[in-house]
Amino acid sequence: MSEIEKKPIKITETVLRDAHQSLIATRMPTEFMLPIVDKMDKVGYHSVECWGGATFDASLRFLKEDPWDRLRKLRDGFKNTKLQMLFRGQNILGYRPYADDVVDYFVQKSISNGIDIIRIFDCLNDLRNLQEAVNATNKFKAQEGRGEAQVALAYTLGDAYTLEYWTSMAKKIEEMGADSICIKDMAGLLVPYKAAELIKAMKEVTKLPIQLHTHYTSGVASMTYLKAVEAGVDVIDTAMSPFAMGTSQPATEVMVETFKGTPYDTGLDQNLLAEIADYFRPYRDECLANGLLNPKVMGVDIKTLLYQVPGGMLSNMVSQLKEQNAEDRYYDVLKEIPKVRKDLGEPPLVTPSSQIVGTQAVFNVLLGERYKMATKETKAVLRGEYGQTVKPMSQEVIDKVIPGEERITCRYADLLDNEMDKLEGEMKEWKQQDEDVLSYALFPQVATDFFKYRQAQQEKVDMTQADTKNGAYPV
Amino acid sequence: MSEIEKKPIKITETVLRDAHQSLIATRMPTEFMLPIVDKMDKVGYHSVECWGGATFDASLRFLKEDPWDRLRKLRDGFKNTKLQMLFRGQNILGYRPYADDVVDYFVQKSISNGIDIIRIFDCLNDLRNLQEAVNATNKFKAQEGRGEAQVALAYTLGDAYTLEYWTSMAKKIEEMGADSICIKDMAGLLVPYKAAELIKAMKEVTKLPIQLHTHYTSGVASMTYLKAVEAGVDVIDTAMSPFAMGTSQPATEVMVETFKGTPYDTGLDQNLLAEIADYFRPYRDECLANGLLNPKVMGVDIKTLLYQVPGGMLSNMVSQLKEQNAEDRYYDVLKEIPKVRKDLGEPPLVTPSSQIVGTQAVFNVLLGERYKMATKETKAVLRGEYGQTVKPMSQEVIDKVIPGEERITCRYADLLDNEMDKLEGEMKEWKQQDEDVLSYALFPQVATDFFKYRQAQQEKVDMTQADTKNGAYPV
Ligand SMILES: [Co+2]
Ligand SMILES: [Co+2]
Repeated sequence: MSEIEKKPIKITETVLRDAHQSLIATRMPTEFMLPIVDKMDKVGYHSVECWGGATFDASLRFLKEDPWDRLRKLRDGFKNTKLQMLFRGQNILGYRPYADDVVDYFVQKSISNGIDIIRIFDCLNDLRNLQEAVNATNKFKAQEGRGEAQVALAYTLGDAYTLEYWTSMAKKIEEMGADSICIKDMAGLLVPYKAAELIKAMKEVTKLPIQLHTHYTSGVASMTYLKAVEAGVDVIDTAMSPFAMGTSQPATEVMVETFKGTPYDTGLDQNLLAEIADYFRPYRDECLANGLLNPKVMGVDIKTLLYQVPGGMLSNMVSQLKEQNAEDRYYDVLKEIPKVRKDLGEPPLVTPSSQIVGTQAVFNVLLGERYKMATKETKAVLRGEYGQTVKPMSQEVIDKVIPGEERITCRYADLLDNEMDKLEGEMKEWKQQDEDVLSYALFPQVATDFFKYRQAQQEKVDMTQADTKNGAYPV
Repeated sequence: MSEIEKKPIKITETVLRDAHQSLIATRMPTEFMLPIVDKMDKVGYHSVECWGGATFDASLRFLKEDPWDRLRKLRDGFKNTKLQMLFRGQNILGYRPYADDVVDYFVQKSISNGIDIIRIFDCLNDLRNLQEAVNATNKFKAQEGRGEAQVALAYTLGDAYTLEYWTSMAKKIEEMGADSICIKDMAGLLVPYKAAELIKAMKEVTKLPIQLHTHYTSGVASMTYLKAVEAGVDVIDTAMSPFAMGTSQPATEVMVETFKGTPYDTGLDQNLLAEIADYFRPYRDECLANGLLNPKVMGVDIKTLLYQVPGGMLSNMVSQLKEQNAEDRYYDVLKEIPKVRKDLGEPPLVTPSSQIVGTQAVFNVLLGERYKMATKETKAVLRGEYGQTVKPMSQEVIDKVIPGEERITCRYADLLDNEMDKLEGEMKEWKQQDEDVLSYALFPQVATDFFKYRQAQQEKVDMTQADTKNGAYPV
């Protein structure tokens, strides 16, 4: 390989975010993270993903931690390493679309509290749902001297998802002012040789760095990285070995060792990585012992590749069929899924579209007539509220499910009034820092419970009673 | 890749041998295997590894099964698929070197009871220790019309193990009359780009098919297969997904899917494989629930790659140091290991040489003087009883450990008298089939216990008492 130019592969470490979100329900507490930060900071990672995704919700809800406080503490420890977060486009880190002023303020506060790279995605890959977050990042980058917008495309399979689709998206992302592109394969659907084709094609149309994010769920992830690296990918996402594999990412040390002595050599120090792994390993063992880490998530779920749908979607479907005593309709629903997906404009099969398509397919099969009943979410998709799909939706299905209703073709958030004043008003009695309104905006009830807990702690109220009552503070 | 010639990769399925040997202590019983044989026979595997290795011992000792009976039943079910066994050279399936007449008879009976491919290896890669088994296979192949000798090289790292070493071995294997070559990497030491170099170099010097066998222990196995396949390897060893990964092999379905649509497409039917996986999956869950499958073996043990020694060797070392309250000498021993290995002629670090080197290194460090004490096994290695090592042994160490003793340069088995008559005499009271003498030859005590159990069963003696007494019949 001496004729190949040297191209060290960069590593984003996910052990502080996606790895524990994927394996142990996002339950790693800040106090467990902090003692290892200093060593992690010396590794030379491209970035450490440590915030956003489900960590915000889990911190407030289960760990009774202020997520902003976690971010500031991590920033304080990581003096030389870029910190990265996952951001759900217009949904921020929550479960509904927010007005632009909330998106804007959340981006500002994320950067000012310590985030360097904001990875922004949308479940339909509708770039309009990402534009505000990208713009905000660029705006605060100019002010704070820190902040990069990475646009992540949800990887999915299907007729609409041709190389032309991905390359045209790459060009649009470059045009919209993003600093880098991520291919985000939540379900492990991207197989090795397809990854090579995809990365090669994208590299031909954009100068932006391309990062690949996948999960080991279907068993191909490390090979997918290897072929993507050979095809020119710039950064890969990996997790320290004790929290790697299964539904998490390939192991950092394994990928580092694989490329050692090749043109892709990461240059990372295995001895330092081994010390870091030694820190996480006993915690893994503890999680195995207390059941937080279920060995089932460590296996290979090949059905993902077989049916080209995410594993979680299949297990949801099985549960729904079981509830209806209709497990014998499994293969009928499996055949209905791609049809419903086509009806809805062939969206990526990622949360929440995967659940919407799967549930509607179950309805269509069990009721004996397609769209005899449609879920609230199916209707919202058909009305265009989630955004624009890659293909047009079925007019026949639109006419049947939402006859005569107005459909949206604009960006949904354009219909939303600014919310910040209203939110500030609702939560002002609890406010101790500017960021509290954002916690409240995302999870009003959970954040309020947290604010009460925080205040009680500050007033040194005995919380034993509260703990016993709702059992809501597992650490 | 259209310019690359089509070259379908062949698959050896290990779920009936190495996978359960590696993950659940070889405890899969014949009665669990038989119902799925018919489906497995339709897959089109290159071969199914289903016998030999530790299965012979475990059948007799723990499962109270006649291993010969298992073989005949599997042969009966697999009408279209080659059956493969693992054979430890002159040690057959036991733990001492046997005279040639025993090796010869074992090979004959293996083939006549159903084996097609005998994979033969020696822990020192001393081909003289394999020659008799290869000759016997070729002899009975001529008689029975069935039987192939595959010579397996134990893969290891070290100064002596250059590409020149491996290619010269490949040439010798071709010359000695083997039908194929296997690179057998028990510890997962072979990393992807080194695998490509190795396979490419070997393919240049031999026309024999080359098969690669590795374990997922260090986390690189699937990538290693991928690069080996691109470099021209002919067959890879994989295990059905419920018994894949961790200390076992990469998953069959994952490798099949990886190569689908490429020049290496295996052509195997994923739907059929899915049905087979569905059969094994509940058994995996059962093994997880009853503790036979420890989730710890499912993880990544990166230390193997870091220290270039097998994981099992490191954990043995830690136990030995713990017993001596000398855990602080870990790194001293780690440094001593390559020195001892050099002293002993740099043998492959595989069982039993890995234990011999590791234990001697512990002695050397703890006693404060190198070779102040030497184990029985170190002495035997120095006397040449295990065979010829790839490099000369240290004369200084020889003089210190076995001063004045005679050293062997011939093949050890040349010093052994034929044993069959003696063995027949010892066990004749239990003999019910010709093969019983071979069971007795390998495990005299265990086989005798089994013969007693068998007879008691036949006489319909109530075994409840016996079970309770020694607890030796877990299934
Ligand atoms: Co992820
Ligand atoms: Co093996």
